[in-house]
Amino acid sequence: LSKLWQKENETLDAVIEQFEVGDDYQLDLKLASYDIYGSVAHARMLHHINVLTDDDLTRIIKGLKLILNKVKSNKLTLTVKDEDIHTKIENLLVEAIGDAGKKLHTGRSRNDQILVDTRLYAKQELIQTTLILLDFSIILLEFAQKYEFVAMPGYTHMQLAMPSSVGMWASSFVENFIDLVKLMDAVYVINDMNPLGSGAGYGVSIDIDRILTTELLGFGRIQRNSIYCGNSRGQIEAYIIDVLAGIGLVLNRIASDLLLFTTREFEFFKISGEITTGSSIMPQKKNLDVMELIRARTHMLIANETQIKTIITNLPSGYNRDYQETKRLIIQSFDICQQMLRVNRIVFHYLEPRPDKMKAAMLPEIFATDAAYQLVKQGIPFRDAYRQIGQNLDKLKMDDPITNIKKKKHIGGPGNLKLDSYSEELHDLFKIWQTRDQDFLNTLEKLL
Amino acid sequence: LSKLWQKENETLDAVIEQFEVGDDYQLDLKLASYDIYGSVAHARMLHHINVLTDDDLTRIIKGLKLILNKVKSNKLTLTVKDEDIHTKIENLLVEAIGDAGKKLHTGRSRNDQILVDTRLYAKQELIQTTLILLDFSIILLEFAQKYEFVAMPGYTHMQLAMPSSVGMWASSFVENFIDLVKLMDAVYVINDMNPLGSGAGYGVSIDIDRILTTELLGFGRIQRNSIYCGNSRGQIEAYIIDVLAGIGLVLNRIASDLLLFTTREFEFFKISGEITTGSSIMPQKKNLDVMELIRARTHMLIANETQIKTIITNLPSGYNRDYQETKRLIIQSFDICQQMLRVNRIVFHYLEPRPDKMKAAMLPEIFATDAAYQLVKQGIPFRDAYRQIGQNLDKLKMDDPITNIKKKKHIGGPGNLKLDSYSEELHDLFKIWQTRDQDFLNTLEKLL
Amino acid sequence: LSKLWQKENETLDAVIEQFEVGDDYQLDLKLASYDIYGSVAHARMLHHINVLTDDDLTRIIKGLKLILNKVKSNKLTLTVKDEDIHTKIENLLVEAIGDAGKKLHTGRSRNDQILVDTRLYAKQELIQTTLILLDFSIILLEFAQKYEFVAMPGYTHMQLAMPSSVGMWASSFVENFIDLVKLMDAVYVINDMNPLGSGAGYGVSIDIDRILTTELLGFGRIQRNSIYCGNSRGQIEAYIIDVLAGIGLVLNRIASDLLLFTTREFEFFKISGEITTGSSIMPQKKNLDVMELIRARTHMLIANETQIKTIITNLPSGYNRDYQETKRLIIQSFDICQQMLRVNRIVFHYLEPRPDKMKAAMLPEIFATDAAYQLVKQGIPFRDAYRQIGQNLDKLKMDDPITNIKKKKHIGGPGNLKLDSYSEELHDLFKIWQTRDQDFLNTLEKLL
Amino acid sequence: LSKLWQKENETLDAVIEQFEVGDDYQLDLKLASYDIYGSVAHARMLHHINVLTDDDLTRIIKGLKLILNKVKSNKLTLTVKDEDIHTKIENLLVEAIGDAGKKLHTGRSRNDQILVDTRLYAKQELIQTTLILLDFSIILLEFAQKYEFVAMPGYTHMQLAMPSSVGMWASSFVENFIDLVKLMDAVYVINDMNPLGSGAGYGVSIDIDRILTTELLGFGRIQRNSIYCGNSRGQIEAYIIDVLAGIGLVLNRIASDLLLFTTREFEFFKISGEITTGSSIMPQKKNLDVMELIRARTHMLIANETQIKTIITNLPSGYNRDYQETKRLIIQSFDICQQMLRVNRIVFHYLEPRPDKMKAAMLPEIFATDAAYQLVKQGIPFRDAYRQIGQNLDKLKMDDPITNIKKKKHIGGPGNLKLDSYSEELHDLFKIWQTRDQDFLNTLEKLL
Repeated sequence: LSKLWQKENETLDAVIEQFEVGDDYQLDLKLASYDIYGSVAHARMLHHINVLTDDDLTRIIKGLKLILNKVKSNKLTLTVKDEDIHTKIENLLVEAIGDAGKKLHTGRSRNDQILVDTRLYAKQELIQTTLILLDFSIILLEFAQKYEFVAMPGYTHMQLAMPSSVGMWASSFVENFIDLVKLMDAVYVINDMNPLGSGAGYGVSIDIDRILTTELLGFGRIQRNSIYCGNSRGQIEAYIIDVLAGIGLVLNRIASDLLLFTTREFEFFKISGEITTGSSIMPQKKNLDVMELIRARTHMLIANETQIKTIITNLPSGYNRDYQETKRLIIQSFDICQQMLRVNRIVFHYLEPRPDKMKAAMLPEIFATDAAYQLVKQGIPFRDAYRQIGQNLDKLKMDDPITNIKKKKHIGGPGNLKLDSYSEELHDLFKIWQTRDQDFLNTLEKLL
Repeated sequence: LSKLWQKENETLDAVIEQFEVGDDYQLDLKLASYDIYGSVAHARMLHHINVLTDDDLTRIIKGLKLILNKVKSNKLTLTVKDEDIHTKIENLLVEAIGDAGKKLHTGRSRNDQILVDTRLYAKQELIQTTLILLDFSIILLEFAQKYEFVAMPGYTHMQLAMPSSVGMWASSFVENFIDLVKLMDAVYVINDMNPLGSGAGYGVSIDIDRILTTELLGFGRIQRNSIYCGNSRGQIEAYIIDVLAGIGLVLNRIASDLLLFTTREFEFFKISGEITTGSSIMPQKKNLDVMELIRARTHMLIANETQIKTIITNLPSGYNRDYQETKRLIIQSFDICQQMLRVNRIVFHYLEPRPDKMKAAMLPEIFATDAAYQLVKQGIPFRDAYRQIGQNLDKLKMDDPITNIKKKKHIGGPGNLKLDSYSEELHDLFKIWQTRDQDFLNTLEKLL
Repeated sequence: LSKLWQKENETLDAVIEQFEVGDDYQLDLKLASYDIYGSVAHARMLHHINVLTDDDLTRIIKGLKLILNKVKSNKLTLTVKDEDIHTKIENLLVEAIGDAGKKLHTGRSRNDQILVDTRLYAKQELIQTTLILLDFSIILLEFAQKYEFVAMPGYTHMQLAMPSSVGMWASSFVENFIDLVKLMDAVYVINDMNPLGSGAGYGVSIDIDRILTTELLGFGRIQRNSIYCGNSRGQIEAYIIDVLAGIGLVLNRIASDLLLFTTREFEFFKISGEITTGSSIMPQKKNLDVMELIRARTHMLIANETQIKTIITNLPSGYNRDYQETKRLIIQSFDICQQMLRVNRIVFHYLEPRPDKMKAAMLPEIFATDAAYQLVKQGIPFRDAYRQIGQNLDKLKMDDPITNIKKKKHIGGPGNLKLDSYSEELHDLFKIWQTRDQDFLNTLEKLL
Repeated sequence: LSKLWQKENETLDAVIEQFEVGDDYQLDLKLASYDIYGSVAHARMLHHINVLTDDDLTRIIKGLKLILNKVKSNKLTLTVKDEDIHTKIENLLVEAIGDAGKKLHTGRSRNDQILVDTRLYAKQELIQTTLILLDFSIILLEFAQKYEFVAMPGYTHMQLAMPSSVGMWASSFVENFIDLVKLMDAVYVINDMNPLGSGAGYGVSIDIDRILTTELLGFGRIQRNSIYCGNSRGQIEAYIIDVLAGIGLVLNRIASDLLLFTTREFEFFKISGEITTGSSIMPQKKNLDVMELIRARTHMLIANETQIKTIITNLPSGYNRDYQETKRLIIQSFDICQQMLRVNRIVFHYLEPRPDKMKAAMLPEIFATDAAYQLVKQGIPFRDAYRQIGQNLDKLKMDDPITNIKKKKHIGGPGNLKLDSYSEELHDLFKIWQTRDQDFLNTLEKLL
């Protein structure tokens, strides 16, 4: 009887079993090591409250370490028959160490187990994603610093608006990402709580020590109410995907810009063969299609938000198997978001502005607003100045774009981007998240 | 140089290549055989217009057949380096038959090639899905016939409303599915057009014969305008996913009903071990969680609709690599929808109503409306009758539910469900779609 | 007691009442006339089966006509207290004609009443939308005919691909719309069924004549099963919004093209002051922002699809008040879609291609594929020809674009667009839908 | 010329004007007062940098105060012709005070103006929503305290799982809301930055003082980079709607629970006439349909997330009119979320548990897990104990539910809910947000 709950004389229909397990057992491999760490903490606690003997504990930890090594060397495989990672590990453990293994599930349920696994997994991935995001932000900032005063036309409605700069354009995303780290931080804090001990959602009837497992696993606090623990399945993940999609929104904007700015008609940037592909029929093609895929995959993140939220709505409290479907979405979202960030890092490495083309694209009309301000400085009310220029657009003259942008010296104008301040902020953030990363690794190491 | 478009001295960055190909190369395996059939038709046409010699054609068809056999025996594997199925097959072909293989891509692009592949794939899957849908509808109808006069409480707002029947409940979904087949038919007809010959979206400069390829591939008509062909990528798929999600809506309703009706508090149906699973901690559990997964996966279909549509919006005409991301969605949607239908078929096989429980759930209030109609028959205006009953709810008496439902003899009332008429309609539809299936198979066979 | 269901001594909390009614009572005004037509048909049927006397019927019809006149002259107003249009009309009727009015609700429920209202409303709007769509398609076709051989660069990945034409571009959308009318037709047919008589979803206990009301209201068939009637609330609307969003996808593509093609960098079209707006700060601005709004509002249609489907999922059979929320979505979607089509008609009236700019944008590389085909004609296998051209891109020469496109004479190539065939198809479709429109009007007129 | 940008001899087509403005001008009324406060701060700054004379400033503030009074007494009305609130106010101001009014727009654009309006509006609404959320949480907590030891069956898969309590159920949502306030806080902080001075997205060419306007408007910091300011339109709103939808997820869960628990079959709660409605045909009905509407409207929040994000994706940097469509979504989302919270407060006021029904619903199987733990305490490994109980389910005995839950004394179990700790947290949070509210009011007051 391979399933924990299986009874004699009952066999699940094979088509149904296949449908139920789906690709879930494969997704579980992403969680396997966290499942083991969670089990170690649980075992230590059971030992502390005298449910496990010293010998039980020793055996269990030894057995779990063996399985962890298998996981780390990619030797643990799951099949549809194994049902899920929790079952598989319990079965392997009992096989390896006998009866002690049968005691491990005391005082917990697969419900709180998967919650712990997901929290630990998400914690690690939130840290990694933020570090990659900060890393890409630093690359972007360096790009902005290098081309701070390369003048570039600014657009609204995709029409020439006012002079801008490559530095202003690139650093706009840096500031955007710095704000997004605030959201990453909020979901990190929310996620950083321990659901272990909530059992199947209604607590358990032995006196487990939730403070101990919280310490052992390095969680920031206990997620107290057992029903809340159960009901938060999918919810915390949804908050996280929201933020990942928020990152996607910015990457989508960068991609949309680059795709427009690298058309033949704009040609604001040089792109090289390392980041482009060709056509099967048109010999001349060099397409920056990696940016098209980033543009498209942003919509996967957005659709995952909808999917995870509509999966968990219109459902009553307590575990419902619908929740299983949330696992694919959180894993896929982390993967896609991290890949998108990594790819951008490479693209900016190969990207080079073409100041000549940017300058050539600036027609006199781009200076119309500045011309109106000249009149304002002569005492004409802005609205009148605006109308006067509007009626004499053909008389507008070219200005020197670099002089023009340098004169806009208010905070956040192209002449005063304060790039250094971003640099400081990024490095401060980097330190915070690296510490989190290190602390998390230390905690897991200490557990074994 | 493994890529069709690759030039000397240029190599795509490996991280970018990996990101670009993603899991697309694996999805391509689903399309491989259609890609070959499309190539055969294209080759026959090129021969017909004298671009290929007799010998070229013989070699190409022989070569393609070899590759088709590989595909059918699951021996064709793709790696990230192969880029896509079109490239792989062209490379294999050239390897196998030499220069003739290099001529095959004359007058076409990967753009119209993938369009053809998708149309043929979707055609086949639309037929299969409809046949499975009709098959399940017949099972549902038999269920309805078997339990036509088993009385069951009817609910609104999840509160007791009026007497209903198991036959009425089950056959309601049959009529719903019959209407959905109308939508399947419409998208089938729209999909059944030949985009081959549109090239990269702007036609080709040799005099290809699109009428011939249309006949050879058995398409219902030509998709004429080359730009429309290109722009329809993702669009036709979106229409299809819309209908698959439409089927999902009904399956979600059936699942929601069964999950409510199999709670301990309702217990309207017996469920057996073949279709239930248990808990890791609670020994007593028997959960119909397959229905929870159907409920959840409906949301994947709905999210896929959003995803595919938002991928292809805000984009200018002409191929954009964003479209690649539509492939996963159409394949995943067909797979999930068909699985959900197959699983339902099994569930209804094991499902058994409990007339005793259903009867016990009918309290006198369920007859309140019928009591008001009694007063109407005595000449009291309905609104007054309604108020009179409303003020005397405690005096309501039980009626015999079976007698009650049998008396509602208007069309579509529980006493007059006209189940035979559904049976006829289903069998007529079955014949139409089976013919389509056979015709399609014959067309493909004749091609080789 | 203003509510049909209200009992003595019970009053709904005012905040809750406000929340429940929301803006629903205002949306109901869109359905008011259909509610009355439905009531007339129901009354005639009740008279036919002897529930109403001759005198009752005369009074009821007279009363309903009075209310219809109020509706048509915009004199019927609803407040939160009126709850909904059905209640309001019944109350007004009883006020106007006394007891006969209290009999009207015999054998029906607000559930089947709102279903009938929605079917009739949707039928009318489907006809109107299709007529507007066909009308715009004719404008587009005339535009294509006028500029059939104006050469225009064709793009893939937003990069120069191959020569195209204004006629090819514009008519691509015509063919797309013709296919969409097939979907409009399918949802029209599905929607064209009579749910009246299904009561609250479980039939009624008097022998109503559903064939008669079906004839009187001009429905194509009876929606039989009463539970299916109830469960189809929101579902049929969802199918419709799917198709409206399908139209949106095409309009979004047109808008995205025009916005790109009217940038300074492209300038392929002249736009005039009648269709542009300006900026509050930049005197030079002329923005085609109407197209930006079309682009954006497409996403309202797509979001409405998701919203309506996720509202009706994870719910058991039988009416649930959740369904009320579907009304806003169907009304809003019809309104937006029709407006978007009307606006496009105007934009194309003012739109003028700039052949000079289009020609200037065509660089030699756009002829690369054609050059490869020249080599193919000399006997070089395509793949070799492709590579040869690819290595000599700098030697490519300009071709005459008009000669070039005229040579692409296969079906659907720029030299053979078959615009006349679209013209015929459009006019045939126009006739079909105009007949539907006329028949519907005649039916409603005959009812009174 | 009513429009700021209008030129002689050019008139926007009326249909297009109507389409463009849509309902936007009405939504603008929600922002009108913030637009005025922003203008006052801008004027004070212009005066500080000597663009406005003392006299100009006095007139402008006097004029703006007059308009603010109009807004506060609901006397400001907008029509389609007014275009938007910014134009209307500038026009009214010029009318009232003459030329000084024409100077107000110096150094700003409608782009940064609407950004400021939205930030201030969102700040105020975030505060209000959080206060309402905390208020409802306190009600929920009182409910939990009152019924802390009322035993209630706990479910998983909608099947009897383990004993729970009303207090545990109600307080689970309290803890959930406390975590959501963390997200509210994060978006509050992100939103609390000053975009004024970014102009049309590329800065302005006069030396504005952004530190001053930031202080005057009470923003927490400056949003520096001008392009980021422009690009954040819709983005910050999206983050906010994400969190509002997060609140919706919890309210949807509460609603789903109550609707299930108030069916006849469960009857765990008494519901009274103040919160229920009836049926037009079935005299017996009492439906808690307010909860059905909450369930449904959650999906509006979720759909608004998708809509706002897909509106702003696949677009290049710089203002695009698409952004106008984000305004409806943020306003609608705040309104719906606040209403839903207010309605819940009332519902819980009228809600009363029925301990008898809850107890009766607990069958012996609900104690199966606890029975297994009894065996564990006798030294049997859990997995064996589980199997033993599973094979003897018919021998299970009833336990006293209240004793049972009281024994589960680990943190977050039904016997140890730590309700007091929530109380403290809620009151601390209340203080923080009330201070924010007061500070914001003070800031605005001081401005005039």
